[in-house]
Amino acid sequence: MERLAGHITIAAVGKLRSLQFRFIQDDYLKRLGRYTDVQLVEVKDMVGKGHPDEVAMQKEGEALLKATEGVNRRIALVSTGRQVDSLELAEFVRNQIGVYGRMAFLIGGPLGLSLEVLQTCQDTLSLSRLTFPHEIARLLLIEQLYRAGTIIAGESYHK
Amino acid sequence: MERLAGHITIAAVGKLRSLQFRFIQDDYLKRLGRYTDVQLVEVKDMVGKGHPDEVAMQKEGEALLKATEGVNRRIALVSTGRQVDSLELAEFVRNQIGVYGRMAFLIGGPLGLSLEVLQTCQDTLSLSRLTFPHEIARLLLIEQLYRAGTIIAGESYHK
Repeated sequence: MERLAGHITIAAVGKLRSLQFRFIQDDYLKRLGRYTDVQLVEVKDMVGKGHPDEVAMQKEGEALLKATEGVNRRIALVSTGRQVDSLELAEFVRNQIGVYGRMAFLIGGPLGLSLEVLQTCQDTLSLSRLTFPHEIARLLLIEQLYRAGTIIAGESYHK
Repeated sequence: MERLAGHITIAAVGKLRSLQFRFIQDDYLKRLGRYTDVQLVEVKDMVGKGHPDEVAMQKEGEALLKATEGVNRRIALVSTGRQVDSLELAEFVRNQIGVYGRMAFLIGGPLGLSLEVLQTCQDTLSLSRLTFPHEIARLLLIEQLYRAGTIIAGESYHK
């Protein structure tokens, strides 16, 4: 099995409150770990901490950038970003890890990603034109990275 | 709260084996039920029943069409279908229920939807260009229909 020589950081806002979502997330993370080194960093969700939304989003953004400091390539997940299919995503990940070694995917909370995060990231990706709750968006990302691992390794994986 | 006068059937292949997926699905279904009459029909998954894939898919398709017999409008979920954002989906659902009353969304299993299903459905929708496991595709659909309900009712719902 081809294991990707590199490292993926998934930087996300907040912990998943639902046990069920957390279980599914952890399962996909574990599976993804068979294909590459991966780390999920959950920065503090600043909603409801007494800040206006704009400030909360900025603070979350700063934490996301700090959590990915050692990374050579940051990709922002936004619904208006570049759309890919699963094969294109696999090719993208293989290529980016090949060139940059350490890469990160940044995914916002309910407030979305701050302008600073969007300006710092070198690329954007969109999982769908639809707007999902951030718990679901996070699951989609991790499942798709796992799927990319199986595609790069030439394995079959069911729909 | 505006409740949609109509009925949505979600016709899907197989039961969700994972307890966690089932919990999340049932939660969104319950929430969707506040906005319109909705029914989930799970037809038998024919994979591993001794049929070639082509035959299994055809049998699943026949069951999906049978399960939606009383419906005036069938929408097939396929990744190559028409892409919409969440607002467009809400507008689509409101419009179709307004015109047709009883509508159905048909979503395949690991094998996908048979040609007969695709030819019988009046429209297609795509949740994403990405290929998801059918458990996730089903969650996305139900969550988006729930979201459509909140959008039509003019309520706010977090990302």
